[in-house]
Amino acid sequence: MGFKKVSRMKIPDATIRRLSPYDRCLEELKKSGNNVVSSSDIARKCGTNPAQIRKDFAYFGEFGVRGVGYYVENLQKDIKMALGINRPWMCALVGAGNLGFALLGTDSLAKRGFKISVIFENDPILVEMGSFQGIPLFGMDEMAQVISDFGIHIGLIAVNPETALKVSHSLIDAGIKGILNFTPATLKVPPGVVLKNVDFAIDLEGIAFQLSNQ
Amino acid sequence: MGFKKVSRMKIPDATIRRLSPYDRCLEELKKSGNNVVSSSDIARKCGTNPAQIRKDFAYFGEFGVRGVGYYVENLQKDIKMALGINRPWMCALVGAGNLGFALLGTDSLAKRGFKISVIFENDPILVEMGSFQGIPLFGMDEMAQVISDFGIHIGLIAVNPETALKVSHSLIDAGIKGILNFTPATLKVPPGVVLKNVDFAIDLEGIAFQLSNQ
Repeated sequence: MGFKKVSRMKIPDATIRRLSPYDRCLEELKKSGNNVVSSSDIARKCGTNPAQIRKDFAYFGEFGVRGVGYYVENLQKDIKMALGINRPWMCALVGAGNLGFALLGTDSLAKRGFKISVIFENDPILVEMGSFQGIPLFGMDEMAQVISDFGIHIGLIAVNPETALKVSHSLIDAGIKGILNFTPATLKVPPGVVLKNVDFAIDLEGIAFQLSNQ
Repeated sequence: MGFKKVSRMKIPDATIRRLSPYDRCLEELKKSGNNVVSSSDIARKCGTNPAQIRKDFAYFGEFGVRGVGYYVENLQKDIKMALGINRPWMCALVGAGNLGFALLGTDSLAKRGFKISVIFENDPILVEMGSFQGIPLFGMDEMAQVISDFGIHIGLIAVNPETALKVSHSLIDAGIKGILNFTPATLKVPPGVVLKNVDFAIDLEGIAFQLSNQ
């Protein structure tokens, strides 16, 4: 039994955010030789509770076999399908500063199906080089053509905050439908374009909140 | 009227995550010369809806004055108090690689009251330097003493994933109660220690999910 294409309106964002950690825990359980797991196994591994897991999975349909559990491989396949990562997503990195280099230096995005296929930069020296770590590197003015040529789906904005708004407009004009904004700039996108903001301060504020109230 | 010290169990994590963006929007509204705002003003600025805002604020008590609105300055003060950021939080950065440098290069954490007071690194050349951008830099083996001496509250783990678990144990042994983990490693912390994980892939998966289902 698999995930059906579901309306995103029905599924809480919090559930979506939990699917990836579940998938990672399943990966570890699989590596430890578990082919079938219970919601309690997953809960123990993820540091959550079985009821939450069963509730989250229920948004997508029933997988568990009563008295047996979940088949890890099927479950992972279904989670990936639900998340839309049973296919690769081509990403453009805009901005090759420290953060950009950090993103290029990790394989954790590629492992999840997000491939940085092109880089855009303002620095003429980097543009002159033409590539970085084997990834083609272009000037900002070539954005529209390159995004179309390479079939880029998602733009990662890692420029300085003052430039972020302009970059977001260029990406959207070039046909990008998904933007991950690493800057503290407040961006706005038209309907049909999905924007997420990475903000480390929000996580730190979550920690401060819990430490203040425990 | 101000926030009361509330049990963190009662307030949804999603509400906590929205308080920071509200505060940022209020900051922008204040800069544009608004001293009093309605929930609709905030909603327009934040790209959310007024009912959500009123519901979120209701977790902490009532602020709005009927027919008048919210006094921006008081509201910001109360949100900061609720988040526990009406005081500074001393942070230790563990790992001075690209990501570490990116964190040091932004003032957006300091602006929110999170000050990177010390850096820990394994690289003997960096340790030999003794400081980076004016921030004292120590070897990993000095962690316990330094964290106590500097009164560090929160550890930012920006090492490679293989080292992250060991670093988290060292931080906890040194008395750290809050950890922000930038690595994809799965960490576990004892009760009383707050752990948050920064995972860009989760945000990308959120984008992939929405693009697949719209």
